[in-house]
Amino acid sequence: MLKSELLKILMQVSSGSLSPDEALKGIVQRPFVEAAHGLNLDTHRGLRTGVSEVVFGPGKSLAQLCGAVKALSEGKKPVMVTKIEQGSGLDLQKRFPEGKYWDIPGVFLLNKDIDLAHPWPALGRTLIVSAGGADLPVALEALATCLFFNLDAGLVSDVGVAGLHRLFPHLEALSQAEIVIVVAGMEGALPSVIAGLCDKPVIAVPTSIGYGTSFSGITPLLAMLTSCAPGIAVVNIDNGFGAACFAVKLMGD
Amino acid sequence: MLKSELLKILMQVSSGSLSPDEALKGIVQRPFVEAAHGLNLDTHRGLRTGVSEVVFGPGKSLAQLCGAVKALSEGKKPVMVTKIEQGSGLDLQKRFPEGKYWDIPGVFLLNKDIDLAHPWPALGRTLIVSAGGADLPVALEALATCLFFNLDAGLVSDVGVAGLHRLFPHLEALSQAEIVIVVAGMEGALPSVIAGLCDKPVIAVPTSIGYGTSFSGITPLLAMLTSCAPGIAVVNIDNGFGAACFAVKLMGD
Amino acid sequence: MLKSELLKILMQVSSGSLSPDEALKGIVQRPFVEAAHGLNLDTHRGLRTGVSEVVFGPGKSLAQLCGAVKALSEGKKPVMVTKIEQGSGLDLQKRFPEGKYWDIPGVFLLNKDIDLAHPWPALGRTLIVSAGGADLPVALEALATCLFFNLDAGLVSDVGVAGLHRLFPHLEALSQAEIVIVVAGMEGALPSVIAGLCDKPVIAVPTSIGYGTSFSGITPLLAMLTSCAPGIAVVNIDNGFGAACFAVKLMGD
Amino acid sequence: MLKSELLKILMQVSSGSLSPDEALKGIVQRPFVEAAHGLNLDTHRGLRTGVSEVVFGPGKSLAQLCGAVKALSEGKKPVMVTKIEQGSGLDLQKRFPEGKYWDIPGVFLLNKDIDLAHPWPALGRTLIVSAGGADLPVALEALATCLFFNLDAGLVSDVGVAGLHRLFPHLEALSQAEIVIVVAGMEGALPSVIAGLCDKPVIAVPTSIGYGTSFSGITPLLAMLTSCAPGIAVVNIDNGFGAACFAVKLMGD
Amino acid sequence: MLKSELLKILMQVSSGSLSPDEALKGIVQRPFVEAAHGLNLDTHRGLRTGVSEVVFGPGKSLAQLCGAVKALSEGKKPVMVTKIEQGSGLDLQKRFPEGKYWDIPGVFLLNKDIDLAHPWPALGRTLIVSAGGADLPVALEALATCLFFNLDAGLVSDVGVAGLHRLFPHLEALSQAEIVIVVAGMEGALPSVIAGLCDKPVIAVPTSIGYGTSFSGITPLLAMLTSCAPGIAVVNIDNGFGAACFAVKLMGD
Amino acid sequence: MLKSELLKILMQVSSGSLSPDEALKGIVQRPFVEAAHGLNLDTHRGLRTGVSEVVFGPGKSLAQLCGAVKALSEGKKPVMVTKIEQGSGLDLQKRFPEGKYWDIPGVFLLNKDIDLAHPWPALGRTLIVSAGGADLPVALEALATCLFFNLDAGLVSDVGVAGLHRLFPHLEALSQAEIVIVVAGMEGALPSVIAGLCDKPVIAVPTSIGYGTSFSGITPLLAMLTSCAPGIAVVNIDNGFGAACFAVKLMGD
Amino acid sequence: MLKSELLKILMQVSSGSLSPDEALKGIVQRPFVEAAHGLNLDTHRGLRTGVSEVVFGPGKSLAQLCGAVKALSEGKKPVMVTKIEQGSGLDLQKRFPEGKYWDIPGVFLLNKDIDLAHPWPALGRTLIVSAGGADLPVALEALATCLFFNLDAGLVSDVGVAGLHRLFPHLEALSQAEIVIVVAGMEGALPSVIAGLCDKPVIAVPTSIGYGTSFSGITPLLAMLTSCAPGIAVVNIDNGFGAACFAVKLMGD
Amino acid sequence: MLKSELLKILMQVSSGSLSPDEALKGIVQRPFVEAAHGLNLDTHRGLRTGVSEVVFGPGKSLAQLCGAVKALSEGKKPVMVTKIEQGSGLDLQKRFPEGKYWDIPGVFLLNKDIDLAHPWPALGRTLIVSAGGADLPVALEALATCLFFNLDAGLVSDVGVAGLHRLFPHLEALSQAEIVIVVAGMEGALPSVIAGLCDKPVIAVPTSIGYGTSFSGITPLLAMLTSCAPGIAVVNIDNGFGAACFAVKLMGD
Repeated sequence: MLKSELLKILMQVSSGSLSPDEALKGIVQRPFVEAAHGLNLDTHRGLRTGVSEVVFGPGKSLAQLCGAVKALSEGKKPVMVTKIEQGSGLDLQKRFPEGKYWDIPGVFLLNKDIDLAHPWPALGRTLIVSAGGADLPVALEALATCLFFNLDAGLVSDVGVAGLHRLFPHLEALSQAEIVIVVAGMEGALPSVIAGLCDKPVIAVPTSIGYGTSFSGITPLLAMLTSCAPGIAVVNIDNGFGAACFAVKLMGD
Repeated sequence: MLKSELLKILMQVSSGSLSPDEALKGIVQRPFVEAAHGLNLDTHRGLRTGVSEVVFGPGKSLAQLCGAVKALSEGKKPVMVTKIEQGSGLDLQKRFPEGKYWDIPGVFLLNKDIDLAHPWPALGRTLIVSAGGADLPVALEALATCLFFNLDAGLVSDVGVAGLHRLFPHLEALSQAEIVIVVAGMEGALPSVIAGLCDKPVIAVPTSIGYGTSFSGITPLLAMLTSCAPGIAVVNIDNGFGAACFAVKLMGD
Repeated sequence: MLKSELLKILMQVSSGSLSPDEALKGIVQRPFVEAAHGLNLDTHRGLRTGVSEVVFGPGKSLAQLCGAVKALSEGKKPVMVTKIEQGSGLDLQKRFPEGKYWDIPGVFLLNKDIDLAHPWPALGRTLIVSAGGADLPVALEALATCLFFNLDAGLVSDVGVAGLHRLFPHLEALSQAEIVIVVAGMEGALPSVIAGLCDKPVIAVPTSIGYGTSFSGITPLLAMLTSCAPGIAVVNIDNGFGAACFAVKLMGD
Repeated sequence: MLKSELLKILMQVSSGSLSPDEALKGIVQRPFVEAAHGLNLDTHRGLRTGVSEVVFGPGKSLAQLCGAVKALSEGKKPVMVTKIEQGSGLDLQKRFPEGKYWDIPGVFLLNKDIDLAHPWPALGRTLIVSAGGADLPVALEALATCLFFNLDAGLVSDVGVAGLHRLFPHLEALSQAEIVIVVAGMEGALPSVIAGLCDKPVIAVPTSIGYGTSFSGITPLLAMLTSCAPGIAVVNIDNGFGAACFAVKLMGD
Repeated sequence: MLKSELLKILMQVSSGSLSPDEALKGIVQRPFVEAAHGLNLDTHRGLRTGVSEVVFGPGKSLAQLCGAVKALSEGKKPVMVTKIEQGSGLDLQKRFPEGKYWDIPGVFLLNKDIDLAHPWPALGRTLIVSAGGADLPVALEALATCLFFNLDAGLVSDVGVAGLHRLFPHLEALSQAEIVIVVAGMEGALPSVIAGLCDKPVIAVPTSIGYGTSFSGITPLLAMLTSCAPGIAVVNIDNGFGAACFAVKLMGD
Repeated sequence: MLKSELLKILMQVSSGSLSPDEALKGIVQRPFVEAAHGLNLDTHRGLRTGVSEVVFGPGKSLAQLCGAVKALSEGKKPVMVTKIEQGSGLDLQKRFPEGKYWDIPGVFLLNKDIDLAHPWPALGRTLIVSAGGADLPVALEALATCLFFNLDAGLVSDVGVAGLHRLFPHLEALSQAEIVIVVAGMEGALPSVIAGLCDKPVIAVPTSIGYGTSFSGITPLLAMLTSCAPGIAVVNIDNGFGAACFAVKLMGD
Repeated sequence: MLKSELLKILMQVSSGSLSPDEALKGIVQRPFVEAAHGLNLDTHRGLRTGVSEVVFGPGKSLAQLCGAVKALSEGKKPVMVTKIEQGSGLDLQKRFPEGKYWDIPGVFLLNKDIDLAHPWPALGRTLIVSAGGADLPVALEALATCLFFNLDAGLVSDVGVAGLHRLFPHLEALSQAEIVIVVAGMEGALPSVIAGLCDKPVIAVPTSIGYGTSFSGITPLLAMLTSCAPGIAVVNIDNGFGAACFAVKLMGD
Repeated sequence: MLKSELLKILMQVSSGSLSPDEALKGIVQRPFVEAAHGLNLDTHRGLRTGVSEVVFGPGKSLAQLCGAVKALSEGKKPVMVTKIEQGSGLDLQKRFPEGKYWDIPGVFLLNKDIDLAHPWPALGRTLIVSAGGADLPVALEALATCLFFNLDAGLVSDVGVAGLHRLFPHLEALSQAEIVIVVAGMEGALPSVIAGLCDKPVIAVPTSIGYGTSFSGITPLLAMLTSCAPGIAVVNIDNGFGAACFAVKLMGD
């Protein structure tokens, strides 16, 4: 609550148009909804942070998921649930038949019509680039999130450093983007190479793809954080959602 | 080198205005300067990446540092050296008396007049916020980098979560910024709190301040990466320079 | 065995009211019961430590669990088993039909009537606060333990730092508690914020909720240990039981 | 700021005894002092959290330390600085000759007369127990903090598990304490043993004493967190100050 | 693309035998095939790196695997898929009945007739040596890769340091090899011993065989990297494929 | 092969009673048996190291296990297989009906009649002590190994530090043992306490029992290695077999 | 205190030859000496554990060290101080001129005449074997401890796996020892090799010698714990003292 | 000792041309020299492993270093000492004035004339490529080792991925090399990029250059091990010597 809002409320109290008790309510009122099972849904997160509440799937029972989707979708508002496995995803789709579950990124969408099927647009103010074929789930989670929040976004896949020339046809797309989200597992070198080649800021997303010394994504995470190329910032392992949120806050309406 | 540039060169060859040999030279020519001691200074990094080459101090001998500063400052170009300790910093200042060494952030500047003394502007399109008094060196490195690259930047210091109310007078500055750089050591909670309060993307910078379980910055790094608040991306421990570079790529000229 | 008890026994020997052999038995007698399968149940742990023996479920076979419950419940004494999965929990309930298995916290109770269903009391001398909806299992384990040991305890759920305003309606409950147990996963920032806001000691419980860099609870654990807010102490990851035990030792009868 | 305080301010606005502008100031006013060098001293932390601001030494320059001590000691208020090395400690004593620097715990005290010299009281509502002779600096930091905040505190040293019988003469002191702070390095077994023997809650403080696999305190930290004895909570490595703060919040005036 | 190739193209443009547009296409043309599901198969990797593209199985759906195999096998070219589990392996074999799935190394081969059944040749310019019986899957992956790329390779198994004498009958094979690939789990001592005994360079492959402190292969990995015997280089845990690729680049045609 | 043996062979060659070729065979002959599937069974490991070859189960196929058991049991020699899960254990028993599979320690025995059922002898020159009921599998693996190698061994279970008095009835057994094997999970404090109480060397075995910060046995492992009590040596996590082997080498026939 | 001792005391009370108060004193009396600076010296540790108290140097001030040496040396008893750096070692020697400081192992000895100068005996019931020349400080600490406790001990140095043949002249010494202490840094392979060659139990001591991936001794520690050779137990990094204590408990008088 | 050598000795014994005793001596004779201070110099390591013994500096006293240099240089044989700091290096030079200490790689050379001064040859059968200016010490250690063992080697420095175009002028040198040693710190991406571009095997050397999340070289180490480009093998952090040894074994005379 910013000073200006507070001053407005105080003015109303001072002028008598608002009683102290009502003002108090206004100031401490709950901008959230208590859903079933002890959940408090933060209904004005969008207003406050620019990113409205999205349901994080893991660790929630089906009952909790349904309760959250139901509460957030009131008035046909769009709802997104992330990182849910196929079982729960299909259960959700049964309960909300007008929604759609996309299994590769593990995303459920309600009241929002988004097409995540291949081929994807390869241009956009937010350009998502993925290093390997196995990084697609994370890249698509980022794409889904961008589209859910109405960003102009594109996706270029499978252009990792083992065959860097595959990236070259997309240099112009890079030069036209405003921010680039680079998704990579294994040794995570692609963000460094892209940041060394172009003048756009890079959000790097390490993925848990790999085995042995990839340590479920720790190695690309560390490599991205330690990059000697300028203008890279990093999010959690497999966090396509978080990378997209950064872009949303930057460019969202 | 983008397709369009390449096509232009090929056209010149085709029209005879450029010989094949000259074209070849143009294509593979070295956009870097070989300085003493085996250094290759990347003189068109600014053009290519939007962030011109800055000298990273650690691990370089004084001879290497001087060689690099001399080569990059040709034609009175501005030069910045980062993360140099007091000894080498003062040595540099002796060798380049028109430069200035700032000891808290460990930054040496030549041909660029920047004032890093307290008080700092508390407003800016890039707003730097630091959690504790001991995080200042990193916050000032970020400020110096922003100013070196001509960004409009401000700095608010010592407003960590142990006394969050100290942040409240700066909520309007947050709402006026376009990007916020949050510098914090210890448990690194400040970026989460700020990202939960405002609608600006946050670049989080963990610092090595703390002891025991802060593990020289690993703990705030992990906490920032794992934040449940949307719109946070993270850079290396103590990497004020990198956070600023991200802002430069986003908003630099 | 304190000096005073020992002196009393020696006095009885000296006065002839106790034979040396009986005294010896009294001193070295086994204050535990040998149950089946090599278990030694510590029947006077309550007397000695203020917290009577509770059965830790993991790694025990059903036969061991049943043997332990049977031995500890002699004379209709209340028994609690913690951290058991649904399969074993329902098996126990079949074997002891007068008991009850609660599946979210994974707790089995016998000879003790406790209601863990939502809604929970939001006030108490011990106040449990949980950051996210997915932290409920751990928060409920803490609540069950408090109630099992007859503490006056309450639970406030889903008030994490991504929407801190959800905590505000509960500030008075915080001010009325004597000790606060804060349960949080992800980046674990809630205990820092609460300890910075109120004058009650905080027992922080990291949870394994999260993915990637939450490292199954290591990140919130480290963040809580490194907090810059005063008056926080931490227990093992997911250890709602242990946090409650601390409160029991402090305030139990 | 609790509801009741806010309601009072609104009432005053409503009755005209306070103008909206003044009310605004009252609500957002700064309960902190801006000291030199970008520090914001949190002057009402004591009121809010029960533990007034103490100066954490590491990472601060002498100028910052002096500025902080000066600002906080206004009106002859007691000031404590923790974890400062001998050099800075003696410098502070020169600048504030009426203060006293204690070198073993690395504590500087001003306007507060506390005796940390051996022998220490071995009884107290807060009883500090240290495992080894080398754990004394941390144990004394805890003792200094307790006494600074006027707790009734005692200290029993060098009674680790390699010779547990050394603890026996102090069993009565344990039974009279209300909370026990146990300081141990190496394998950190002492808190488990004490928590298994007595009915008082234990705050365990791992120390960085040891070599090799003690990993600067990580091993005792993990052992304390994983203890199978009930009623132990843990603070950061070497954090005698934090353990004492927990006791202050619990029992302070 | 080397200078000489580029010069040739430019000459052709200059002489008019190639139009600028065609030259441009030649320079930036895609030496890869876009397969289904967002995969870009790097068809001239063999030419460029000496090791043609092999399909890495993990994280790919059956549809992706089939698409990749089909695209790479055009013109009856040999194809290898690595690290696929039995389910997908047999599925592949059904779809490409002329191929063969070997379950111990988890390798699928098409258009390439290789016999991986015991006994294996115990001599070869590339000699693979495995420490324990449980290391065979990794050793056979190395053997399969060598044979796929037409190397002269042999395999000696189960000669670890717990019974070093088992290695002695193979000393002559070691002396005849040009490079030795040593596969070992547990404490990973075999590469050190072999490198101390013979004058051939050793590629060491740690395996995830073991339990407890083998930490899924971290311990042999570290032991191999830290070896005091000269001439050892190390690849990822369980990376028999990578070790063989090194040999292929060294000795392949 | 010791000097004396070699000299004897050379003497025989010199005297003509042994031809050079036969001598060569004698010197380099294979003291191992090549079994199916690339296994080399070390048949004179008992002679050389005092501990004959035991089959380590994990990572071996049923075919490999059967081959190894068959080869080692030739001539009705006793065979032990360790760490096999119930499925493979029962399969082995079917193939070798005269053998016996014990499921708690996961041990299969052939041609060796050992009783591992409760109650166990509580006395022995090698005394095994386990801290918790869930540590039994590891303690029984140690017991089985001792008995397999004909040691005089006993087992005392469930006497951990949360109720140390349970250990007191066994102090005399400790004083009569020659070596003590202490098995403990969680914080692993029991070996320290026992080594501080008695004058016998202690082999400490950390177990993977616990959750959260027990880190699958890393915490008790580190605590045991860092113990401040003298005379403790440590083996791998869950390595009851290895601890027993140490005793076998010390006291075996 | 064993049952028999306790029964004897109770008998005396019963017969009137001991008053209850005196008996109480006898039972709880302090078998330790309070030295200066809060130290409690455990004077009957030798009796109880077979290893009398030795002063661990690190973290103790010179005053503490001198106090401890003085208290323990009463009546010309032998005293050993371990792991002290040259400065403190020479200071001790000045204060106790009849003592001797050996700088390579960092050991100070008083009232005990031991010669640690090269050459060392290469035979003994306890045989110490060190892998590299840089492991000597740890090996000599083990030798000093053995000799301090009157063991028959020998030392063979610099016979690591990079040139294993250097070990061969000592195979007979191995076969005559009863226990072998193997000291190794780097990859720590020597204990595996020795345990695979001979039938003596091995106490393995990892050292912090090495760089990079030796991680200050973690790598040899892990390799030793994970060894596939039977009969190895491990102590802390650089803990020559602890390895020797194990031998003392086993074979000491 | 191979079978053929052994057979030859046995033949001589059999024919009487060698007595059993002399044969025994021949077989077990010591191919090493006992130098002062417990060192055993492995004088036929060159013969056996292809890499003669080089003195590893760290952890050795000046006396040990001098003893080793003196013993190995007998008969004017060339000697190299690695990783010695300036102090000891200059001391060595004083003692052996005909030798030379090079301070950047920390190498001392005797009886071997090698020039390590800039500029270095940029071509060679072994080509060393370093990513940054600060990686030079490690790259030069590799160069010195190659030249010491008479390899044809070159060095290209400062061509890291932040400005990859600096590598392009050296593509032909890459194509002419037989093996490439790539030295890189920070995120360690250069080996991946080079292995993806050329058909030579790559020995990757991570360096400890960097700060924060470079973790003293762990991050480039992990990135190199996890590379998705084929044909990379890795050595210890900063181990330029080891990488060169691999090349020596491969191509040395």
